[in-house]
Amino acid sequence: MQIAVIGSGAQWTDQAEEVGRLLGERGCVVVCGGLGEVMEAAARGAKSAGGTTVGILPGETTRDANPWIDYAVATGTGHARNLAVVASCEAAVAVGGRWGTLAEVAYARLLGRPVVVLGPGPGAEGDGIEHADTPADAVELALDLVGRR
Amino acid sequence: MQIAVIGSGAQWTDQAEEVGRLLGERGCVVVCGGLGEVMEAAARGAKSAGGTTVGILPGETTRDANPWIDYAVATGTGHARNLAVVASCEAAVAVGGRWGTLAEVAYARLLGRPVVVLGPGPGAEGDGIEHADTPADAVELALDLVGRR
Amino acid sequence: MQIAVIGSGAQWTDQAEEVGRLLGERGCVVVCGGLGEVMEAAARGAKSAGGTTVGILPGETTRDANPWIDYAVATGTGHARNLAVVASCEAAVAVGGRWGTLAEVAYARLLGRPVVVLGPGPGAEGDGIEHADTPADAVELALDLVGRR
Amino acid sequence: MQIAVIGSGAQWTDQAEEVGRLLGERGCVVVCGGLGEVMEAAARGAKSAGGTTVGILPGETTRDANPWIDYAVATGTGHARNLAVVASCEAAVAVGGRWGTLAEVAYARLLGRPVVVLGPGPGAEGDGIEHADTPADAVELALDLVGRR
Repeated sequence: MQIAVIGSGAQWTDQAEEVGRLLGERGCVVVCGGLGEVMEAAARGAKSAGGTTVGILPGETTRDANPWIDYAVATGTGHARNLAVVASCEAAVAVGGRWGTLAEVAYARLLGRPVVVLGPGPGAEGDGIEHADTPADAVELALDLVGRR
Repeated sequence: MQIAVIGSGAQWTDQAEEVGRLLGERGCVVVCGGLGEVMEAAARGAKSAGGTTVGILPGETTRDANPWIDYAVATGTGHARNLAVVASCEAAVAVGGRWGTLAEVAYARLLGRPVVVLGPGPGAEGDGIEHADTPADAVELALDLVGRR
Repeated sequence: MQIAVIGSGAQWTDQAEEVGRLLGERGCVVVCGGLGEVMEAAARGAKSAGGTTVGILPGETTRDANPWIDYAVATGTGHARNLAVVASCEAAVAVGGRWGTLAEVAYARLLGRPVVVLGPGPGAEGDGIEHADTPADAVELALDLVGRR
Repeated sequence: MQIAVIGSGAQWTDQAEEVGRLLGERGCVVVCGGLGEVMEAAARGAKSAGGTTVGILPGETTRDANPWIDYAVATGTGHARNLAVVASCEAAVAVGGRWGTLAEVAYARLLGRPVVVLGPGPGAEGDGIEHADTPADAVELALDLVGRR
């Protein structure tokens, strides 16, 4: 099962790494945007638990991927790769984040994917968006929401 | 000057048409997603004032454009066309709308374009997003924000 | 009717300008990639005949458009805008060009749009690709192929 | 190392499967468009050799992937995913194919990736495009071209 970890902000990397680690432990493939901060921390966490990571990049080469990405896809379509990140998951966990993350949350809901927000998040509310207080709660909730679909 | 009108919802078409009409009167090119409801109403309003309209479509043919579109661009990239709509404007006016509109607002802010929300809007708040109570206020505010950039 | 002029190469700008001029005289909207060389020459030609031009850009701002573009669409999706250029036309005229133009010719044929190649072109052959020796022949052939569809 | 196998045509599936198998044996990750015919055969071949496969899909869900895809990316951007397929590889092997494959070959060369064509191919010639007579020759040549870059 592919679960996306989305978000941004250097202050959120510890939480993102823990989310990635827990997803890796549960046997989920962590999908992310493949670059730094939250994306890199989530991938590092997944690898620390023996998990697998897929990075979906905005640019035209896989060399932009952070070192914890196992399989990198270079979309070449800039910020439109945000659509690909959430289209490629069963559910998304948002850790921090601002406008780019908000676009991902919006696309996730447009495509019917559930979203769990850890922390204040990018500011979207509505049907299919739930909140969690800890990485463990976020991961449990995300997996639970996928199971209920 | 190209101004985007974004949004969705049949209940918002009267407001969208008035926004389009006022933008057309002011000599602005109305850019929109080229399809129905808010997009069609905004384009119809612009044409009623002698304005010009550009529709940026998700599909692979310009034949999907509503009848009020002067120049249609078929991106062929599905919901990624939402990025193109706001990248092609100096400012965006959101009328109604839900997840697709939220993605457009998020992308607009990611790219530094000001957004004026008429009505409850898609639920995004933050720097660069302002609210208006009437179509006239929305259009004035949008033009004012472009002038201040 | 929207006709795309595609291609590249500084040595082809005179021919591209003449293609643009003839399309403008015929009342066609010239669609192109909005940047320099062949794209700019075709747009300049169209404007010299009182025509209208649409530029479909790879970047995130319409400010990249050449000065002869009337309506600019910033797709934000890099080379994927080549798909948008040909999806937005009824037929394409290729003037010069190499790999980017070849991608456009391929997409045009994938979507069923006829292509007229002026000069050696980007090297594609097959059903729906025809050759012309002069700008006048290229424009006549393109309009004829659209009429036959 | 990620190598793309591109192409189409039911008559080419045996050759594509052999290309996939040989790439899997060599430890390469096979990247493809994730759907049927040549894409499915290449992925099946890679899996038969214990290799790993990445499918880059045009649609909005990973459920469209053929059964031999290990990691699926749903780009949501239609034919623009052809850009992602070749941007995500070090080299591409084309087996059969027509317009969609030609777009991929063109994008591969635009981005500087070498292409090896097995069989008649989609019709592109030029610097960086080489031909092979057998799947074994195609795989050796592709790996050799990557090494020389």
